[in-house]
Amino acid sequence: MKWLSYLYKGKPNYGILSEENKIVPAQALFINPPKTLLDYIKEKPAIKELNEETEIIPIEEVEIQIPFLPPNNIMAIGKNYYKHVLEMGTKEDVPEHILVFTKSSNSLLPHNGQIELHQNITSQLDYEGELAVIIGKETRDISEKEALSAIFGFTIINDITARDIQKRHKQFYLGKSLDASCPIGPCILAYDGKQDVIFQIETKVNGEIRQADSTEKFIFNLATIISSLSKGHTLLPGDIIATGTPSGVGSGMTPPTFLQEGDTVKVTIDRIGTLQNKVRKS
Amino acid sequence: MKWLSYLYKGKPNYGILSEENKIVPAQALFINPPKTLLDYIKEKPAIKELNEETEIIPIEEVEIQIPFLPPNNIMAIGKNYYKHVLEMGTKEDVPEHILVFTKSSNSLLPHNGQIELHQNITSQLDYEGELAVIIGKETRDISEKEALSAIFGFTIINDITARDIQKRHKQFYLGKSLDASCPIGPCILAYDGKQDVIFQIETKVNGEIRQADSTEKFIFNLATIISSLSKGHTLLPGDIIATGTPSGVGSGMTPPTFLQEGDTVKVTIDRIGTLQNKVRKS
Repeated sequence: MKWLSYLYKGKPNYGILSEENKIVPAQALFINPPKTLLDYIKEKPAIKELNEETEIIPIEEVEIQIPFLPPNNIMAIGKNYYKHVLEMGTKEDVPEHILVFTKSSNSLLPHNGQIELHQNITSQLDYEGELAVIIGKETRDISEKEALSAIFGFTIINDITARDIQKRHKQFYLGKSLDASCPIGPCILAYDGKQDVIFQIETKVNGEIRQADSTEKFIFNLATIISSLSKGHTLLPGDIIATGTPSGVGSGMTPPTFLQEGDTVKVTIDRIGTLQNKVRKS
Repeated sequence: MKWLSYLYKGKPNYGILSEENKIVPAQALFINPPKTLLDYIKEKPAIKELNEETEIIPIEEVEIQIPFLPPNNIMAIGKNYYKHVLEMGTKEDVPEHILVFTKSSNSLLPHNGQIELHQNITSQLDYEGELAVIIGKETRDISEKEALSAIFGFTIINDITARDIQKRHKQFYLGKSLDASCPIGPCILAYDGKQDVIFQIETKVNGEIRQADSTEKFIFNLATIISSLSKGHTLLPGDIIATGTPSGVGSGMTPPTFLQEGDTVKVTIDRIGTLQNKVRKS
């Protein structure tokens, strides 16, 4: 089941995206619909039986929004694919423990929203296609064995990074948190506890494949990430965890190739969808 | 003028703390009181003339709360006092640009709240007394000259840090974001644009002075911090910026001396007050 938030006839709403790319709005799904998708994630009321009279909306008629705002926290795992560590540095940089930084909630951008180039402060804006986990329940000190039960679902994040700012300020936050530098969506694939949690990620810039890998190649898998993060550090419903990017980022190319005005970046993850954003000048 | 949030007879409220340590509640201050202190910071309606009939509450009768929840973001500046950089490393570690990390909003703790020892995951819990800035208005790309105009006020933060976790995970977030590891308060000293912005900080553990310095010794001053942070990265009302800790942390002592169950940590900043917290086992 896929969830998404959208504007329809100017009004914000959320609902389910069917396999035929039709939207079933929240009002048709619940007796008392939670107000937002985040409220649904927190409350998880039962979904009604749908019938033939259920209102559906073609996806072409809506403007897709950020899944929910504000998130409690956007955490991200750095250096989680061996080949990406090598393209950015050396074997010595392969982490022994998860490397965690955050992105500002100001940086969130919906599917089809425009990534800001920030040309006055960076000349090295780069993409990073990533699988992201949405936490579904309050979770602390969870074992690796139980860790996946904390997941509400999966989405796509493009962890846009200003490489020069990232390097200059040592800690990653600032280079990862410029305004409009965290495209997310288009939808959240709910996790039912049984699906395969290995996903294929592909990032294209102007149609050219730049990143193509499987989350099977994670240095730290989902269970390790969630269990490690939950140690003494409570995760909350709506927390977002970006799980790291595969090799193929612009700064790893020869010569390094950064984003430019007008570029289109598409990150596709199987079973979730494609997150597409264009780059505009600031 | 000092602002604080509190529980009085079981009900949450906020107001002004007078020089006689009496509280004037929001209802006596405004014709239409904003709901929370954060709403006041955003809206800044005019304050009424107070008269002799104004209700006041002795501070002893309230339980001081976190100034507001949730904050948009808790940012913190690392390595901002030369002597602290040296006690943690070498001259080579003196930063050329601000070093920024975040703390989880889950980590916030009120004045008199209990710091968690997290003895199962760290043996190196440390204090860091710091001046914190509360942002008062939406701010982006502000010059150093104008930067102080973004400040709503000043408060105290104890940037509790698990040194072993901080080192193990390289990026600072996790070691700085354990539950109940960000005492804040007790109040916010409003900035009127004219006050002296140099403050004296003192941290005591069980009555013993550990840190004593002046924000005059900042490597990056307030104007530089706010201006740098605002470059392409919008600051919002209620954003919290901890400005770095002076020398004298436990891990800089010989031998290193970390927090233990029952320790009392008091951080005092002139004109703001004293933030006091005791350490409890997890």
